[in-house]
Amino acid sequence: MKVTQHYHAKIYVTLRPSVLDPAGTAVQSGLSHMGYNNVEHVRIGKYIELNISAQSQQAAETQLDIMCDRLLANTVIENYRFELTALTETVATGA
Amino acid sequence: MKVTQHYHAKIYVTLRPSVLDPAGTAVQSGLSHMGYNNVEHVRIGKYIELNISAQSQQAAETQLDIMCDRLLANTVIENYRFELTALTETVATGA
Repeated sequence: MKVTQHYHAKIYVTLRPSVLDPAGTAVQSGLSHMGYNNVEHVRIGKYIELNISAQSQQAAETQLDIMCDRLLANTVIENYRFELTALTETVATGA
Repeated sequence: MKVTQHYHAKIYVTLRPSVLDPAGTAVQSGLSHMGYNNVEHVRIGKYIELNISAQSQQAAETQLDIMCDRLLANTVIENYRFELTALTETVATGA
């Protein structure tokens, strides 16, 4: 019997440090106009949450790596990292 | 003497659960076309990093709350949360 385990993934996609972040600069400028001159180094990235089912945490991590590399992040200019947590329910599939 | 402390903030802006996420749906569809049918509940949010200087962690948190509420998040459709970590350097300002 194969048991499918469900995982919750939190994926962080951030610009590489060497890449300029015009959106971050705009936000910093906006904050400055609001009176907050004490803010620096604003960088804006993506935060993706999803549920994934796989037979093991390692299998889920391997698949997520490919998903990030091929779709979720542009690895030329972005880095990514993710955290996986197991969800409690399991589903038995097949014998 | 006032001592200014530097903090690094990680801000997570996520769509409220009741709000549809067309971008998340598109990503889920894209993953499905790549053969990953084991992914569900894709939600795409923002991940913002910045440095803020303030006289105390509480002061920094109060200011960040206002920044999130007024600029970084649209609280009608988005939730936000943040984590603050103190950076080691401190700068003494004035007597």
